[in-house]
Amino acid sequence: MNLILLNRQDQWLNPSVVRLDGRRAAHICDVLRASIGDCLRVGLRDGLTGSATIEAIEDGQVQLHVCLTEPPPTRHPLDIVLALPRPKMLRRILRIVAEFGVSNLHLINSARVEKSFWQSPLLQPELIEAALEEGLERSRDTVMPKVHQHRRFRPFVEDDLVDLCAGRPCWIAHPGCSAMTPTAHQPGVVMIGPEGGFVPFEVNLVERVVARRLNLGERILSVDTALTCVLAQCESVFLAV
Amino acid sequence: MNLILLNRQDQWLNPSVVRLDGRRAAHICDVLRASIGDCLRVGLRDGLTGSATIEAIEDGQVQLHVCLTEPPPTRHPLDIVLALPRPKMLRRILRIVAEFGVSNLHLINSARVEKSFWQSPLLQPELIEAALEEGLERSRDTVMPKVHQHRRFRPFVEDDLVDLCAGRPCWIAHPGCSAMTPTAHQPGVVMIGPEGGFVPFEVNLVERVVARRLNLGERILSVDTALTCVLAQCESVFLAV
Repeated sequence: MNLILLNRQDQWLNPSVVRLDGRRAAHICDVLRASIGDCLRVGLRDGLTGSATIEAIEDGQVQLHVCLTEPPPTRHPLDIVLALPRPKMLRRILRIVAEFGVSNLHLINSARVEKSFWQSPLLQPELIEAALEEGLERSRDTVMPKVHQHRRFRPFVEDDLVDLCAGRPCWIAHPGCSAMTPTAHQPGVVMIGPEGGFVPFEVNLVERVVARRLNLGERILSVDTALTCVLAQCESVFLAV
Repeated sequence: MNLILLNRQDQWLNPSVVRLDGRRAAHICDVLRASIGDCLRVGLRDGLTGSATIEAIEDGQVQLHVCLTEPPPTRHPLDIVLALPRPKMLRRILRIVAEFGVSNLHLINSARVEKSFWQSPLLQPELIEAALEEGLERSRDTVMPKVHQHRRFRPFVEDDLVDLCAGRPCWIAHPGCSAMTPTAHQPGVVMIGPEGGFVPFEVNLVERVVARRLNLGERILSVDTALTCVLAQCESVFLAV
């Protein structure tokens, strides 16, 4: 936790004093081993970040005096469309998406997505938020990515995809195609398939509607690695040769 | 498993016929649902890749006729030096390193590495290999990354680091420093700290000996995300603007 995330629903005693209990209070006491007078990094959900001074610790509660001054880090330029992964992988995906500050994650169906994945309890909004929070706390962000669920592939592609691209370029990651070279730091939408990849019908349909193929290299990557790869490359610090 | 990895210690009936049992045979029968005459992608550990035809399946054993013709994918240009992460994270790190074809992973100690991490059973060579195999099978590689363990930070930096860099540039990932711009696709060594980062003494020592600071962006990332970030950016497909 590199930032304690505060909510408007927390117990605010006045506009700059909040009382925390539960997970965050335990983290402050047991992991950070902070005491009265110590200064912590905090942020208000979907709002500013700043610092907080510990005013009191008692009965497992921590009282903070909060001063919010800084905007959260900038958003990532890409939105992500991802075939729903198995639950264990989904939790990691949500953390990664929040760490990078992705604004929109669209979870979609695909021929190689197992039907049972859509039954996962992790798809409940409160559990999605909890997984996203882990990423926000890591990267000191306050802005919760929006997670959208689309349970039918064809209607999603034919009815929704063009609208959500809103004129931005759209790529579909697909091994073995010739390499595209999107431009770094530009807004866009990238689609990533399930383990085993999109089936040819899906790639062709998406391509006919809006997307161009994107090759992530000669190696086949796990879904979490491929996602991080796309998000990292788009903001590359390495000079191209 | 996008490739069945074969070993010289497997039960070879002649130079092109091998009999598999256990995990790989189960995968061929139960996951791939392959039958006699089907063709699979295979690779010989530290050797060529190619195809194999199933000649027989009986008693949980699968007999393959193997034809190896293609070199494995090219190696990643970077070697990685990583503060030993907690075991759950280490397993993921090993998979990522193998997926990207990293030649050398140096696991090192650091002030913020918990001593108990060095007791993890996962540090035994056979378990390291099993975790690496997962990555190789994913990315259709045959070359096992070499994993080195250095249990003392200062002797590693003062006595080993310059030699293992062998004239290649060395970077230490450190949040908040000014951004360096290494060149993509060039050989080099990148050092990544533990959760919470390297302590200032460590950064300063490494910098004095050989490394330059590398900034991965304004966001603090998890160790697995930071590693993938470095490996992906170095072979970026995105055009820099």
